Amino acid sequence: MSDRLETVKSLIAAHPDFPKPGILFRDVFPVLRNAKALRMLIDLLCEHIKSTVASADIIVGLESRGFLFGPMVAEQLGIAFVPVRKAGKLPGKTVSVSYTLEYGTDKFEAQEDSVKKGQKVIILDDLLATGGTMKAAIELMEKLGAVVELCLVVIELDDLKGRNKLNRPFYSLIHY
Amino acid sequence: MSDRLETVKSLIAAHPDFPKPGILFRDVFPVLRNAKALRMLIDLLCEHIKSTVASADIIVGLESRGFLFGPMVAEQLGIAFVPVRKAGKLPGKTVSVSYTLEYGTDKFEAQEDSVKKGQKVIILDDLLATGGTMKAAIELMEKLGAVVELCLVVIELDDLKGRNKLNRPFYSLIHY
Repeated sequence: MSDRLETVKSLIAAHPDFPKPGILFRDVFPVLRNAKALRMLIDLLCEHIKSTVASADIIVGLESRGFLFGPMVAEQLGIAFVPVRKAGKLPGKTVSVSYTLEYGTDKFEAQEDSVKKGQKVIILDDLLATGGTMKAAIELMEKLGAVVELCLVVIELDDLKGRNKLNRPFYSLIHY
Repeated sequence: MSDRLETVKSLIAAHPDFPKPGILFRDVFPVLRNAKALRMLIDLLCEHIKSTVASADIIVGLESRGFLFGPMVAEQLGIAFVPVRKAGKLPGKTVSVSYTLEYGTDKFEAQEDSVKKGQKVIILDDLLATGGTMKAAIELMEKLGAVVELCLVVIELDDLKGRNKLNRPFYSLIHY
């Protein structure tokens, strides 16, 4: 593991029994308290994209922790940032997909004019657990006619095997 | 108005009757679709901070649209980014404040160890309307012992006079 990756990983906090008993929550926010570590993290994400994706038009960030890194990565690569949000929060014409949570369902939306047919997108989030929200975001983008070039997260919880649900190129910087 | 500010303002969309009849919603997301305009926006925010705040330790971003700009501004200034989130989303020991919405109340939280007593903070959000959420964030930061040096937003809805609620240094880039 590179020095930069070690630095970033050393700042990720672990909170047992959050948000409920039996869950070990990985907290990325302490990385953002350190401007140098945040720069390293963004550089690592951008370097991976540049080395594996020939061209991309859009970074898609999932509400709300995907908003922390998405605009920085997009700006550094000189491409657009587009949000995927919980239902009811985006104005204008939107498209939506429902996805299943442990209890009940939730809904993701994107603005219809935010992605054009055939545009190449990279979907970014802080963490991949069971993969349900990432899978919904893929579906949403493909509904808009986008080509999903890469799904990218900072942290992957390997045991939950979320990546097996995606069937799209996937990369995570840090594994637990 | 400077050319950069004109460029940013020209990209902000207006959606009548969202989220409900009679409200004209100002949408900052189209600015993020343009990497150059996003860079201009971040530079304008950072330049204002540097010219008016002698020193600051932390950029505090309000969930979730404050997450879009907060980490970029903090990284550029070389200081920490700390989130304020809706109740129940942050692990570890937290402090909270309740605030009144049009119907009912909501709750903001911050991690107890995210801000040290006496640290100088700048609170950042995308938009100031009635000022209720910004006021709650000020209260939360002062509960943690922070000194609020500046409240900063991209867009201010002047008619709602939200800034009168704050009693702290306040600045908005764009007025409607």
